[in-house]
Amino acid sequence: MTVIDREACEQRDRNDPLARFRDRFRLPAGLIYLDGNSLGPLPADLPRQIVETIERDWGERLIRSWNDAGWIDAPSRVGDRIACLIGARPGEVVAADSTSVNLFKLLAGALGLRAGRKVILTEHRNFPTDLYIMQGLVALLEQGYELRRADADDLADALDEDVAVVVLTHVNYRTARMHDMAALTAAAHDAGALMLWDLAHSVGAVPVDLTAAGVDLAVGCGYKYLNGGPGAPAFLFVRHELQADLRQPLSGWMGHADPFDFESDYRPADGIGRNLCGTPPMLSLIALECALEIWRDVDPAAIREKSIALTELFITLVERRAAGLGLSLASPREPAERGSQVSFGHGQGYAVMQALIARGVIGDFRAPNLLRFGCAPLYLRYVDVFDAAVTLADILASRAWDFAAFKQRAVVT
Amino acid sequence: MTVIDREACEQRDRNDPLARFRDRFRLPAGLIYLDGNSLGPLPADLPRQIVETIERDWGERLIRSWNDAGWIDAPSRVGDRIACLIGARPGEVVAADSTSVNLFKLLAGALGLRAGRKVILTEHRNFPTDLYIMQGLVALLEQGYELRRADADDLADALDEDVAVVVLTHVNYRTARMHDMAALTAAAHDAGALMLWDLAHSVGAVPVDLTAAGVDLAVGCGYKYLNGGPGAPAFLFVRHELQADLRQPLSGWMGHADPFDFESDYRPADGIGRNLCGTPPMLSLIALECALEIWRDVDPAAIREKSIALTELFITLVERRAAGLGLSLASPREPAERGSQVSFGHGQGYAVMQALIARGVIGDFRAPNLLRFGCAPLYLRYVDVFDAAVTLADILASRAWDFAAFKQRAVVT
Repeated sequence: MTVIDREACEQRDRNDPLARFRDRFRLPAGLIYLDGNSLGPLPADLPRQIVETIERDWGERLIRSWNDAGWIDAPSRVGDRIACLIGARPGEVVAADSTSVNLFKLLAGALGLRAGRKVILTEHRNFPTDLYIMQGLVALLEQGYELRRADADDLADALDEDVAVVVLTHVNYRTARMHDMAALTAAAHDAGALMLWDLAHSVGAVPVDLTAAGVDLAVGCGYKYLNGGPGAPAFLFVRHELQADLRQPLSGWMGHADPFDFESDYRPADGIGRNLCGTPPMLSLIALECALEIWRDVDPAAIREKSIALTELFITLVERRAAGLGLSLASPREPAERGSQVSFGHGQGYAVMQALIARGVIGDFRAPNLLRFGCAPLYLRYVDVFDAAVTLADILASRAWDFAAFKQRAVVT
Repeated sequence: MTVIDREACEQRDRNDPLARFRDRFRLPAGLIYLDGNSLGPLPADLPRQIVETIERDWGERLIRSWNDAGWIDAPSRVGDRIACLIGARPGEVVAADSTSVNLFKLLAGALGLRAGRKVILTEHRNFPTDLYIMQGLVALLEQGYELRRADADDLADALDEDVAVVVLTHVNYRTARMHDMAALTAAAHDAGALMLWDLAHSVGAVPVDLTAAGVDLAVGCGYKYLNGGPGAPAFLFVRHELQADLRQPLSGWMGHADPFDFESDYRPADGIGRNLCGTPPMLSLIALECALEIWRDVDPAAIREKSIALTELFITLVERRAAGLGLSLASPREPAERGSQVSFGHGQGYAVMQALIARGVIGDFRAPNLLRFGCAPLYLRYVDVFDAAVTLADILASRAWDFAAFKQRAVVT
């Protein structure tokens, strides 16, 4: 068993081809941030650019900025930027609304493309808001539509000629288990169904090639690994070949062929733009655009390589140093099946996470017992992972979380 | 005929009880901004507050700000602030999504409350995106639902026992004609229908008392007279008595009774919160909250009084100074029927507006021939209205718009 000490981690940081990107973020001193899978940190250049947008574009130019500052094109401009990160072609992605709203749009559109088929297939453990949106649409339609749920391993068996669309999240939010996108997309197509992927926990963290996998539809999130800020606008993808036939029901004016003609009847725009709805929240959208600038210079292969290295390191260190202290790995042990996050179960998970946070290691907790640690390769160092593992082991060994739990109860009651 | 000169306008500004609010905004020097009905100007204190949100809450506190900085409560906190401006009670309004998305939610919810009734009644000249959203929902439902359109004056006759919900915009975006909210709401109720108002061109500009009028549902916009910034989040209102029964289909996790329990099945929150969907764009939402701070000190009666005074002044001045120069008033002449905007038709409307903008008077143009001038009482002065009218008359008299149109064509082609 190789000894991994802090010095070895420092050495890896010195050799890290992504190390220079850490300076593109403002990371609070003394904090190890392992929650970029929930809210990415602040890009260093973003405050300046937002102030410019507010003071110059809004404050000085006012309404003229819709044209002069390019606000009107921001959804497609940001979309094209995201397209580069997910193997989509230009004109296949727009930034808009929230992931949930975008899922509703594309799901309803997909059902329209598979008239006669009444089943939406998903997995039991899909991200809850995705399940809720599917339930909301099925309840609205009342035309014999059905939401079918299967375990992740039984999806292929659950596919039949009644399935209109398969909706899955690529990387599971609890375990970071990653689906085989190409294989499941092919299986959906073999059954005559469309395939819709939620990339919330994928984009910016693991390789995604929608074109190579033949994916039909996708949605994703701007505020996790893309670092677009709290509640940043989401995005949606429609494969070029489907765009002309897909009709989404949230047909607001921004998706109209000629929004400024103010016609009385809706005519969808020709391309991906028809999937826009209302006026986009421009400050948040510009913030996302700033954050995406960083990705121009990033090598996706280096991201995946470092992501695997970080998560492997964390698992190894935690399992060695905290052996027998009640943790059980909840993420796949096989790197190829794992996203950029490591989860451990622990009977006192909530209290343990509180103790970690009190000592400057920010992960998060998901009921009933899950500790989640996001390992974002763009700004996380190997020494951060080392220190986090040491701190976690120390808290468990000293039962420091007992006290933390006590304090927490005292605050809550 | 009383002479109205610039000095008289200066005197009115000195006596204006709302004059002090002008300093709460950053208005570019040398510009007369008559487009606050499209995008309100920048509140002076907003850049500082947004930088604080970005640098401290996002940058330093990161994920913890959802609780510590109160992000999670922002939709209802901002909603309650808007409630004060539209005669709603606390807990009846949330800020969320766009006006179009919110209309979709409430419209679908309304149909669920009036099962068996298949007609949505609206007016031909409703705001286009509202029409598009109604069309989108009807097309999605495919259950015999119908969108019935009538002229504004024939709405009462178009009401019958098939109408589930009446959807109207309170103040028309083209003409500023204002509906009688109480009378039409009562007529809808007499026919057994629900009443849904779009307040996009009302809130912050004209008195609205949803409770007094017995209104069921409403939506509205944050970036016009509320000055929340480009594409600021919108809001929605559901009368308290309807909240428990209304089920909107965009059932995302923010509307769940326990969003952080991550249950597999959707359970709507008890109150107005069930009408939220995805994670809100926090930077844009905080900007809206900053802008709403100004309204704490504003007397709504003074707003209406000045709004009428400004629009009366503008109409009078323009009709005197530009008599015979091709303008025709497109707004109601009777102040009680008019919102806070004045529209004139002109055969060369587009070119005239370009000439105005070139001379620092910012209004806007709506095809085919409409010049729109928003008169926001919070920051507009009587001298601004005077100068704008003089400039408009001068452009028309000198046919300066001919040259402007020529330049415009040169740029476009």
